[in-house]
Amino acid sequence: MTEFIPPGSRFIDLPSPFAMKRGGVLHGARMAYETWGALDADGGNAILIVTGLSPDAHAASNADDATPGWWEPMLGPGKPIDTDRWFVVCVNSLGSCKGSTGPASIDPGTGEAYRLAFPELSIEDGADAAAHVVAALGIERLACVIGNSMGGMTALALIARHPGLARTHINICGAARALPFSIAIRSLQREAIRLDPMWHNGAYTDDAYPESGMRMARKLGVITYRSALEWDGRFGRVRLDSDRRDDEDPFGLEFEVESYLEGHARRFVRRFDPNCYLYLSRSMDWFDIGESCGGGTEAGLAKLQLERALAIGVQTDILFPLQQQQQIADGLRAGGIDAAFLPLESPQGHDAFLVDIARFGPAVADFLAALPPAPTGRAG
Amino acid sequence: MTEFIPPGSRFIDLPSPFAMKRGGVLHGARMAYETWGALDADGGNAILIVTGLSPDAHAASNADDATPGWWEPMLGPGKPIDTDRWFVVCVNSLGSCKGSTGPASIDPGTGEAYRLAFPELSIEDGADAAAHVVAALGIERLACVIGNSMGGMTALALIARHPGLARTHINICGAARALPFSIAIRSLQREAIRLDPMWHNGAYTDDAYPESGMRMARKLGVITYRSALEWDGRFGRVRLDSDRRDDEDPFGLEFEVESYLEGHARRFVRRFDPNCYLYLSRSMDWFDIGESCGGGTEAGLAKLQLERALAIGVQTDILFPLQQQQQIADGLRAGGIDAAFLPLESPQGHDAFLVDIARFGPAVADFLAALPPAPTGRAG
Repeated sequence: MTEFIPPGSRFIDLPSPFAMKRGGVLHGARMAYETWGALDADGGNAILIVTGLSPDAHAASNADDATPGWWEPMLGPGKPIDTDRWFVVCVNSLGSCKGSTGPASIDPGTGEAYRLAFPELSIEDGADAAAHVVAALGIERLACVIGNSMGGMTALALIARHPGLARTHINICGAARALPFSIAIRSLQREAIRLDPMWHNGAYTDDAYPESGMRMARKLGVITYRSALEWDGRFGRVRLDSDRRDDEDPFGLEFEVESYLEGHARRFVRRFDPNCYLYLSRSMDWFDIGESCGGGTEAGLAKLQLERALAIGVQTDILFPLQQQQQIADGLRAGGIDAAFLPLESPQGHDAFLVDIARFGPAVADFLAALPPAPTGRAG
Repeated sequence: MTEFIPPGSRFIDLPSPFAMKRGGVLHGARMAYETWGALDADGGNAILIVTGLSPDAHAASNADDATPGWWEPMLGPGKPIDTDRWFVVCVNSLGSCKGSTGPASIDPGTGEAYRLAFPELSIEDGADAAAHVVAALGIERLACVIGNSMGGMTALALIARHPGLARTHINICGAARALPFSIAIRSLQREAIRLDPMWHNGAYTDDAYPESGMRMARKLGVITYRSALEWDGRFGRVRLDSDRRDDEDPFGLEFEVESYLEGHARRFVRRFDPNCYLYLSRSMDWFDIGESCGGGTEAGLAKLQLERALAIGVQTDILFPLQQQQQIADGLRAGGIDAAFLPLESPQGHDAFLVDIARFGPAVADFLAALPPAPTGRAG
């Protein structure tokens, strides 16, 4: 079992025991996080970022880790999330393997990794854990919670379960509930891992590792993270050079797109713990803001308390389709919140928020620039 | 190795040797087909149907096999493809395991199943084999060739390689070339089969069979054959009844959509030969009408000879997206052919042509009803 902890990580212990929504508790659990910028004297300039399934807390370079982060062009001095103005916190999700406690972490009760003994993980647990980090950093009120992809679910759960903690919210390619197409994709990814004989019911080792299952899961992920439109222009029907293909094998890598998937898979399979992947993946299926608030999804959204919100989506996203961000904005507006819906024409599909900074940057920057100062400051 | 041959199948031997486009030959190969209706004295009322990857030749019930076929509501007396008027031939694809020769068939040179010793299969080989069946049945000129999905590729290849054989063409959810998204999906399906240790480089048996790989491949197929939109309405977030789920396993079947996929997979995995699946799947990746005609895809289409054509597609199809049927119609028109493009608003995705008969039926019926009698009859 391996955890992949960025060198700049800081840690905050969760309350022990930490009760999980679906039952079970964690003892001695912790959250990894990183920060950028400085917290104002009145604590009113804090932004929390909650992430998609796989990212760590290293969203961008900072004093503790100068290497570029996964959202480097978006976060820093003078960037769309301007750390000259904002104090930004990014947490690694509870259940992940990148510093926060998850199935790959040691269970203090046994001295062994949790593996499948980790309690069932929900998006709400991740939200509670992130809220605890915020409080432990002395932040009474967030100027904004930004959630990408799975983090868009986490942010909504945080807003629902911790009313008043966030003044505003930017939901980026997120969703208020999981729908059957994305459940089906994730179910198949999990099945690929679980069908790999090396998975061994979660008891794999580095030497006997479900590499095939992880490869399949990652490739299917990449297929659904991007878009057919982008790939038409990017790969078309281009073949690999003959020295990069095995012409003896009619089923081997031949097209550039196959090589691209293979490269993504190779980089991923040993950099993310398979059991953590299963838990985080399933937590998304279970999420429906309507379930945690009572009533349906729209009712759940209408109960949320915020001053302002923005839901951004992309026409080419098949995993978190545009209608889901529209639903978030509509639902929040039905609850009296000043909520905007911003559909972008990015060709890159779900991953657009990571790469199409030309569109996402101004959208996020404009929203944050227009935020009025916190009305009551630290007294919140 | 098992072949799955519908009881009403008839057979026509291919020329022996039968030369394959990418090299290699078949000896003693045959094609399975079924027919409906009666051939006119002048032979002018014949329609050929070429199919998607998995169907057999039993498109509908007939005198030889009263069981419903895979296109039952579309084909028969008084139906959209009206067998009171038309003599209809449906062939099982070359390379399949449903009566036509394929990797699961016995290689007469060895007395053993071909398995991976089957020569590389191309869409063009399937087209040549289908054209041979047409000729062997005494048909000099087809009133129409109808191709669905992969069959839409096969039909275009047939038109390109056998000019004058078909007067008209209906392309249903087909494509003039494979694009990277569908190549990626198929590549992953093949990888699922090939990564299954039971695949054993094609040398599986009924007792040691790559069931997991086939299950994964089929589930991914079903996901891409339908649409997110349809599933939202059909499954939503409905859970299985508690007696149908294993609440002890957080990763077991819980949502209706997961059970639906599992049911599809179970029905398929032992009803289609894995090696045949690999060959047919790869043949689609390789197809580009521009390659077999010289020049690009549009140039390839513009060279085709037809009197009239119709390309039908569906907005929700992610595997053969609507732009591909638009490209077919545009390309044929650029060559001076009276070609129409008909986008339908079916919610069912790529599979709409199998289930949304309310939309596809009239479209096909209207095209066929408007066909003028063959100008020169048998003399073609």
